[in-house]
Amino acid sequence: MNTWADWFAAQRTAREEAGLQRALRPRAAGDDLLDLANNDYLGLSGHPDVRRAAADAALWWGAGAGASRLVTGTTTLHTELERELAEFTGREAALVFSTGYHANLSVVTALADRDALIVSDAHVHASLIDAARLSRATIRVTAHNDVAAMREALAAAGGRRALVLTESVFSVLGDAAPLDDLAEACADHDALLVVDEAHGLGVIGHGGRGLVHHLGLSAHPNVVMTATLSKSLGAMGGVVLGSAALVDHLVNRARPFIFDTGLAPAPAAGALAALRTLRGEPQLPERIHERSAALADRLGVPRTAGAVLSVPMPSPQTAVATQAAALAAGVRVGCFRPPSVPDGVSRLRITTHAGLDDARWAHAVDVLARVVENHLALT
Amino acid sequence: MNTWADWFAAQRTAREEAGLQRALRPRAAGDDLLDLANNDYLGLSGHPDVRRAAADAALWWGAGAGASRLVTGTTTLHTELERELAEFTGREAALVFSTGYHANLSVVTALADRDALIVSDAHVHASLIDAARLSRATIRVTAHNDVAAMREALAAAGGRRALVLTESVFSVLGDAAPLDDLAEACADHDALLVVDEAHGLGVIGHGGRGLVHHLGLSAHPNVVMTATLSKSLGAMGGVVLGSAALVDHLVNRARPFIFDTGLAPAPAAGALAALRTLRGEPQLPERIHERSAALADRLGVPRTAGAVLSVPMPSPQTAVATQAAALAAGVRVGCFRPPSVPDGVSRLRITTHAGLDDARWAHAVDVLARVVENHLALT
Repeated sequence: MNTWADWFAAQRTAREEAGLQRALRPRAAGDDLLDLANNDYLGLSGHPDVRRAAADAALWWGAGAGASRLVTGTTTLHTELERELAEFTGREAALVFSTGYHANLSVVTALADRDALIVSDAHVHASLIDAARLSRATIRVTAHNDVAAMREALAAAGGRRALVLTESVFSVLGDAAPLDDLAEACADHDALLVVDEAHGLGVIGHGGRGLVHHLGLSAHPNVVMTATLSKSLGAMGGVVLGSAALVDHLVNRARPFIFDTGLAPAPAAGALAALRTLRGEPQLPERIHERSAALADRLGVPRTAGAVLSVPMPSPQTAVATQAAALAAGVRVGCFRPPSVPDGVSRLRITTHAGLDDARWAHAVDVLARVVENHLALT
Repeated sequence: MNTWADWFAAQRTAREEAGLQRALRPRAAGDDLLDLANNDYLGLSGHPDVRRAAADAALWWGAGAGASRLVTGTTTLHTELERELAEFTGREAALVFSTGYHANLSVVTALADRDALIVSDAHVHASLIDAARLSRATIRVTAHNDVAAMREALAAAGGRRALVLTESVFSVLGDAAPLDDLAEACADHDALLVVDEAHGLGVIGHGGRGLVHHLGLSAHPNVVMTATLSKSLGAMGGVVLGSAALVDHLVNRARPFIFDTGLAPAPAAGALAALRTLRGEPQLPERIHERSAALADRLGVPRTAGAVLSVPMPSPQTAVATQAAALAAGVRVGCFRPPSVPDGVSRLRITTHAGLDDARWAHAVDVLARVVENHLALT
C-alpha cells in the first residue's frame, strides 16, 4: 500500500463528485474552431509579423536564453523590449520576466518582508495571492474595490512599509479598479500601489496603453505596474514597470528573477513585434469594446471594462455542459469553476477578439446566444 | 519625500558597500566570446535542428500558447513533448510548465499544505525553498546530503504526509545527492522524494537520462522528478515527471500551472528537438565529464558530478575581478555571490560545454587557468 497513491485517488474522487475534475484537451494547429477562450484579444499571436519575428529570433539567437538574466541570459532583444514597453506605458523603466506569475511574485517578495504590510483586494489573481503569502508580510484582505477599507487598513500600518495589491481590470468579473482613488490613498500613506494590468494592457486607454496610463497615473511615484506579454501581446512572459530604482532593486533582490532562466528569444521577439503592431494600429483595442458591449447586451449580462465577459451559471455542471454545446457548434469558450472564482460562482468566460473578421465574429455571437439561452432555460 | 525612494537608495548603498551590487549586461548575438557562464551544456540551444524547430513552431502555432494549459493553451506539441520526456526518463507521465520555478512551486504546493511535513536539504535551489514556504507546511531543513538527519526528521512526521526535497546534482557546489539512500528512507516512511534534476538531465547517466534513471529509481513509487528545459535542452520551461496520478493531481490543483499561460510553442518545440538530438547522440554527455574532470584538475579544485565547476574565491570583490579578467580575455564565466551561495562563499561558476570544438575548449581552459592563478596569487 502506498499512502500517496491512496491520497491522489481520494482527492480525485472528491473532485469528480463535486463536478470539479479537469483534464487537458490538446488542440491541433489549424483546427477551424472560433477560439473565444484564449486571451489573445487582439489576434496578435498569429499576426504574420509577430510569427515571423518570433521565428527569426529563434534562428538568430537560438531556442533559449541560456541562463539567468543576471548571468548571460540578457540579450539586446530583452533590453529593447524593456525600453519599448516602458516608453509605451509612460514609465521610467521596465523589467521582463519569464511569466506574469514571476513578475508578480518578484515585485511583491522583493518589496515586502516580515516587517511590511500588504493590503490586497479580495479579487486579485492567484499569483498576487501567492506572492503575498511568500513575502511573509502581514496580509490584510479588503472587500473588492473598497477604497475606504483600503484606507483604513493603510492607516493601521504604523510606520511599516506598505503595499496595496490590485488589478486594473479583474480577470473573472471583468470590472475595473478605482485606480485614481487607490493611488491617492497610497500617496497619503506612503504606500506603493501594485497594479496588475494583465487584462488592461493592449485593451484599455489610448492605443491600449492600459488603465494606469489612461488615468494619468503613469508618472505617479506610488504606482507600480505589472503586466503579461501572453495576453494582448500574444506571446509569453511578464513585465514590471516603474522607476529605474525599482527595477534596479528587483534585479538585485527578486528571487524569481535571479534564479530563473531568462525569457526565450522567440517569445521576447514576438511580444516586441506585437507591441510595434499595436502601436501601428492604435484603433485595434476600440474594436474589443464595441464587440464586448454588443455581446453583453445580447447575452443579457452586464457590460465589462475589458475583453473578458463573464456569464454566471447555476452550477459547475451547467457551465461545463454549456461550454461543451458551444464547442460542438464550433465555438470554444472558457469555463470558470472553483477554485478559479473569487465568489464560488461557476461561469462561462468569453473573451472578445478584435482579430476576427465581422462575419466570423457575428457567427460566434449567434452560437453563444443560442447555447446560453438553451442551457439556462433547462435549469 | 518618498519613503520608498529612500528605501531603494539605502538598499543600493548597502549592496554597493558589501560588493554585492549587480547590473544586467546585455549580450549581442554573434559576439565571439566563449560562453562558459550559461547552462547550455550540450550546445543544443544553437543547434541548427533546434533553432529550426523552434522557428517552425512560431510560424505554425504563433508566438504564444494563448491561455492557461487548462483552457486552450495545451497544443499537441505540448503533449508530444511530455510523452517523449516521460519515455526518455523512464517515468509514467510528465507535465510541462513555463519555467522550472513553476514546476517546483507546483509540485510542492500541490502536495504539501499546513498538515504536511517538508524535509529539505540545506542546499536546494531557491525555487524549492520558496515552494516550501508557500506551501505553509512544517519545514525541517537538514544538513547537506545528510541521510541520517533526513531519516530522523521523517521519523518525527507522526502520520503527516511528508515530502523530501533535494537535487540530483547541486547547482552551486556541483556535487550529487545520495538518491538511492534517500529513496529508501522515503519508502520506509511513506514519504515522497522530490528530486530536482535541473543539472542532471542531459548530463548524468546513460545518454543523459539523469541520476534518477542512472540509479534505477525511474519506476520507484516514492520518487518524483522535476527538471528544466532551459539548461541541457537549451530552450525554456520546466517539467515534473512521475505517475499519471501525480500529473492528474497537478493539472487540477497546482496554482502555478492553472493560473499561468502555457509554455510558448517555440521553446516547447526547441526542447523537443533538443531531446531528439540528444537521443541521436547519446555519447554527447560523456564529453562534459571528460572536460570537466580535466578542467578541475588544471584549476586545482575538486571534480564535480555534473557540468558546473565551482572555484571558491576569497571575497566577492576577487570573484568579480577574476570574472572581469576572464571576460577581457574572451571567456565569459559566472560568478556566485551571496545570496546565491548556500555557504556564503563567493566563487566563480564555470560550466563545461560539450558543444565547443577541441581547440576552442583548450583555449578557454588556458585562459581560465591563467586568470584564476593570477587573482588567487594577488590575494
